This record gives sequence, C-alpha cells and structure tokens, in this order.
Amino acid sequence: MITAKSVSENLQKLRDQAPLVHNITNYVVMNNTANALLSIGASPVMAHAPEEMEAMAGIASALVINIGTLSKEWIEGMLIAGKTAQKRGIPVILDPVGAGATDFRTQTCHKIIAECRPTIIRGNASEIMALISSDVKTKGVDSTESSEKAVELAKTLAKESGAVVSISGPTDFITDGAKVLSIKNDIPLMPKVTGMGCTATTLTGAVAAVCPTSLEAAATAMAIMAVAGEMTLPLAKGPGTFQSHFLDSLYSMNENDIVKHLKL
Amino acid sequence: MITAKSVSENLQKLRDQAPLVHNITNYVVMNNTANALLSIGASPVMAHAPEEMEAMAGIASALVINIGTLSKEWIEGMLIAGKTAQKRGIPVILDPVGAGATDFRTQTCHKIIAECRPTIIRGNASEIMALISSDVKTKGVDSTESSEKAVELAKTLAKESGAVVSISGPTDFITDGAKVLSIKNDIPLMPKVTGMGCTATTLTGAVAAVCPTSLEAAATAMAIMAVAGEMTLPLAKGPGTFQSHFLDSLYSMNENDIVKHLKL
Amino acid sequence: MITAKSVSENLQKLRDQAPLVHNITNYVVMNNTANALLSIGASPVMAHAPEEMEAMAGIASALVINIGTLSKEWIEGMLIAGKTAQKRGIPVILDPVGAGATDFRTQTCHKIIAECRPTIIRGNASEIMALISSDVKTKGVDSTESSEKAVELAKTLAKESGAVVSISGPTDFITDGAKVLSIKNDIPLMPKVTGMGCTATTLTGAVAAVCPTSLEAAATAMAIMAVAGEMTLPLAKGPGTFQSHFLDSLYSMNENDIVKHLKL
Repeated sequence: MITAKSVSENLQKLRDQAPLVHNITNYVVMNNTANALLSIGASPVMAHAPEEMEAMAGIASALVINIGTLSKEWIEGMLIAGKTAQKRGIPVILDPVGAGATDFRTQTCHKIIAECRPTIIRGNASEIMALISSDVKTKGVDSTESSEKAVELAKTLAKESGAVVSISGPTDFITDGAKVLSIKNDIPLMPKVTGMGCTATTLTGAVAAVCPTSLEAAATAMAIMAVAGEMTLPLAKGPGTFQSHFLDSLYSMNENDIVKHLKL
Repeated sequence: MITAKSVSENLQKLRDQAPLVHNITNYVVMNNTANALLSIGASPVMAHAPEEMEAMAGIASALVINIGTLSKEWIEGMLIAGKTAQKRGIPVILDPVGAGATDFRTQTCHKIIAECRPTIIRGNASEIMALISSDVKTKGVDSTESSEKAVELAKTLAKESGAVVSISGPTDFITDGAKVLSIKNDIPLMPKVTGMGCTATTLTGAVAAVCPTSLEAAATAMAIMAVAGEMTLPLAKGPGTFQSHFLDSLYSMNENDIVKHLKL
Repeated sequence: MITAKSVSENLQKLRDQAPLVHNITNYVVMNNTANALLSIGASPVMAHAPEEMEAMAGIASALVINIGTLSKEWIEGMLIAGKTAQKRGIPVILDPVGAGATDFRTQTCHKIIAECRPTIIRGNASEIMALISSDVKTKGVDSTESSEKAVELAKTLAKESGAVVSISGPTDFITDGAKVLSIKNDIPLMPKVTGMGCTATTLTGAVAAVCPTSLEAAATAMAIMAVAGEMTLPLAKGPGTFQSHFLDSLYSMNENDIVKHLKL
C-alpha cells in the first residue's frame, strides 16, 4: 500500500538523506537522469569503468543499471558493480531498455538478473514481457504492448527473479509477484520526451535507497513521476518545455502537490 | 520540387507511420535528436554495438550514421548497420561531422560511402567540400565556407557517390547532382545551438523512411527544420530557450505553419 | 586582479576571436558544455579518439580534459591531446571530476598532471583537496568540503603542479600558489543543475584561449559563470528552467550585466 502521505514521507526522507545513487546508464539520458536526481534531492554519479566499479558501488546507497546504449565493454562494469551492490545489500535497479528488440539486450538482461539479483526491475510493457516470453518484440525502445496486458507476465517475472517489477504506461503497475499496486495518472506528453522511463528508473533507485520495502519504493517513485507530470502539464507547450518544467516540478514538489494530483 | 503542400503531406505520412529510426550518432546530440524524432512523430532508437547492428538495422525504417564523436570501436558497428540497411533497401543517411578537421574523420566517411552507399549525405558546407577536395579544412565541427560556394562540389559528390547531398547554411541546398533545391529561411540563432545540424540529419532519416524520393525527402526535412526555426524565433530569448521551444515547434507544426513560414 | 572592466574586455576578445576549444569530456555534460561555448561565442569540438588527438589538439586554441565518465580507453586520447597541446603552448585545463571518490580517478589525475602539465586545474573543494591529501573523500562528484577550507591545499597544489588552481563553491577561489582571487556571488540553484562545474571548466578554456595570464583567465571564467547565474536566477523557477535561461544569459551578457552583478 502507498498513500499520498507515505509518498510525501518517503520524499522527505530522500531529501534529508540525499543518497548517492550510482548509475551505469545510457548516453541518451545521462544528463536528464542526473538532473532528475539533483532536482528531487539525491546525489547522482555516473560511472562505468570496471576499474572503479567496486569503489563507486562501494560508497553508493543504490545502484541503477540501464542498458539503453549497451555495448560489450560496459557489461563487465555492470556485473562488477551489481555484485558489489548485492554483497553490500544496497538496492539494485535494472532498466531493461530495448529488451525484446534484439537478442543482445534480452540476453544481457537475463545475465544481469542471474548474477546481480536486482531488487527492482523497471521497464515498459513490452520490455517486461520480453524478459519472460520470447514472442514479444519491442519497437526499438518503445512499447508495443499495453501495461494492463503485461501484469500477469510481470508477476511471473517477479516470482522467478525475486525482484519487484515496475511497468510504466498510462497506468503504472508495480508487483512483487503477489500484490499489485497501480498509479493511474496518465500524462499524454510523457512518451514524447526521451528518457522519462529512465528517469523513473533512477528515481526508483533514489527512493529505494531510503525506503526498505522494494514494492513501496518502486510505487513511490512512479507516484513522484506522476505527480511531477501533472504539475508540469499546464506549464508545458510541448515536449521541449515539458522537459525543463518537469525538473522544476521535481524540485518544488511538496505534500500538497502529492495530495492534489496522485491518482491511486 | 517541393511545395508547402508536399512538405505538409510528407509530415502527415511521417506522423501516421511513426517510423523507427536507428541512429548511430554522437554523444553530444543523442538526447536532442531522440527528442526531435519523438516530437515530429517518429520513434528513435540509439544503438551502436556490433553485436546488435544486424538486428536493430533489421527492424528499422531508416538508418542515420553520424560521426560526431567518432572512435575506432564504433566504426565496425556503423559498417555492419550500413550494409544491413543497404541490403534491406531502407534509407541510409550519413552526417560527416567534422570531415575536413581530421584525416581520421574524412577517411572514415570515404569508407562508409564506399561500403554502405548512403542514400543521402547531409553536412555543413566545409564538411561536404572536404569530402571532395582535400584543400578544405573544417574548424572542428563549424563550417569555414558558405553553402553557396559548396554547391558545385556537392553536385560532384552526388554524382560520384550516388547519394543526394544536403548542405545546411543560411540557405540550404539539396542536390542529386543534376537538380538543386533550396530552402531560404535564415534562422540566425540556429548555429548557436549545438546539434541543430545533427537534428536536421536525423529528421532527414525520418522523412526518408516515408518518402521514396531521396531528393524530396532531404529537402522536406530541411523545410521542416526551417519552419520550426521560424516558429521558435519569437519565443526564444537565446540559444537555451530556443532549444526547448524548437522541440515544441516540431511537435505542434501544422500545414498553416508550413504555408506561413516556408521560403523556397 | 580582475575587475568588471577586465572581465568585460576579455569577454569581448573571446567573442571577436571565437576560439576553437577542444574538449575531451564526460557523457553527462557534453551537450551543456558545447552549448555554453557556443552561447558565450566560442567554437566547441568534442573528440576523444587517439587516432585524431594530434590533429584536433593541433588546430585548437585550448584543450579541456574532464574525467567525469572516465574509462581506460579514453586516457590514451587525453594524454596524446594533452602532450600535443603542451608542445604547442596552448592552455590545458583539467577538471578532476570525482577525484577522491575512487583511486582510479585520483591516480589518473596525477598522471595527467605529471605528463601534460595543465595550465589550470578547476574542481570543487573536495576534488582539489583529494589531489593533495589522500584523507579527503568525494561523495561521487559532489563536494564534501567547503571551498574556504580548500584554499591552503589549493595553494600547495598550485606550487607543486605549476598550474593555477580554481575552486568553485558558494565563494570561488582562484590561486597561482601566491595570490588568491575570489568571486563572491553565491547562486544557490547552481549545485542543483548537473554540469555547472564542467561548464565553468570549459569556459575557463575559452577565456584562457584569448587571455595569456592563467590566473586572470581562470578568475574571469568564474566571474562570467557568476554573472550569468545572477542574470538567470530571477528567470528560473527551478533547476530545469535555470539550465535553459543560463545559456541565454551567457549569450546576451554585456558590460552592464557584469558591472551590475559581479561581486569580487
């Protein structure tokens, strides 16, 4: 269960603790996700070299692995950081960007899941489905399936992997394999801005760093995205101004905004 | 020939089909070009690993190769994707960023042209000239020549390479070696925003995915850039706000905007 | 010594000469720093491949090395470019991003300092301190120390390395080991926007390209950052809109703005 009150309390905890979130992420969104972490009150670091993965994951409070612009050279760093994080007991979040578009991506996700045991997997509907069913194909990085349709496979993935699974879409669904939480704010401009999914993933890492329950952490992050989206919509005239104002919304969000906008 | 009407019809086709555009592009502009594709109505994917180039170029409707932050490791992926795209008959667009600044860039472009046979080459005046004449030097990634001066060499490049050549500048010129089309909107702030040329290239890929004639596709993309620039100018107070509003303009552009602003 | 008048004169020189600034920098900020250079009137190029480092550093007027997303593969390029720049006598600026967070970063900085002899080192307080004292730890890329506390170690670093050392913080301090200059504008939103430090570093390169005294160049760049920050604050509603308006401020900045806002 999450409520406007619990979201607000976790957000306050995040701002008080300003956790260091270590990101191994894609080139397209690094700037957006670093800014989203700073705006919400966390401290971002982007680092991927195998030589420093033990050290960096060793001082972080959460690790985010995002395969958006995957290459062989980066997988080694992801695995070292993931194992270090797992050993230290800090949350590991996986964003399987483009799983289902190429075997290279799908198989790399399976390897990360097997070796690093992520605590939360967050993706769009067809990425999540592709991790369970080889019939599902992703259109590059855009979903070809509805989040509603993905819920059952997400439960299976959660049970098999031991991770909470978080599916973004017009309605977001978050499941630990048994319970399913949903966030019902539908922000039409969001899929028109690159990196909104990746931003959701990195905020999931930030919340998980301060909130011990993965299901609650994952749902809280999606709630923060949704509230920021609602705050931003009346200010944006299109995807470009949406992007700027969205960061401002993360920065200024308070309990009133959450109570006013969150649709559970 | 292009007209406001033909530009508008191709834009509508693009929005209806939402083609997947596979980009192998530079670190500086990935976010901008992904957002430009989303804003205009296409679906972007950024991917470069040799391991997934056949698969990714195999599901795309156009391939964009941009050498802006070139390294040896990326050339292999560019060549595999380029050959896959050529075999499938989808458009291949080359942006020779910084050709003429270093031999490494100029020679890599020659290799890509020879092995992947791009359907359209889009660059600034000195980049285009440097692909034909070794006397021309580019100042990093900024042109040292006028687009007017580049037209004759662009015709030669078009004839030798078999590609349509698109030169951006205060006036844009697009040629297939015989005909020359021009777009005469001159947007002074555009060269002050990084990645505007790269954005023109990726939109060229998006239009080419839905418009079978390379000359028309290349000119249509420059027309869309020009109209978006004109729409944005009164809203921007400098290069920073120009960047945000430009995406909004791509998103909201309709036939009236094209009729009102396009200068052929 | 710097004054509003000297800052204004150096800015005018920069705009007149439009120096080419070669950046080997991190993935997170490439877009921001390229845009900052364009907005202030310089010409940016981002390039890192060992194959073209002699050529690119060979036509540039300044070289900026920033280790923000360091990997082994990039160090070779940094060293070739740094030695080429040193041989040509153009300014070399080092940004030791995350020094003190991992040994890999700290040791790479020591290697660059030893082999390329940077003319200016610009970082936050704990990064600068970590280059002299192994007791200091950086929280990822965020400082854990005050700039006031870093001044004495910065003097030592300046004397040992032969570089001017520039520390950013609520008050910026710039020292050649003997003299200490300071900029006292304190812009609270700046640490909430990623890449503001990296932007300061690249502008330091642009100013150093036209201003022969490293101490004056480094302080002038921090003054330009401070004035742009003051101009931007009343326009920004948070970190997102700050980022856009900051570029506009760099673009429009004139002598009056400098006189009005600069706090020395």
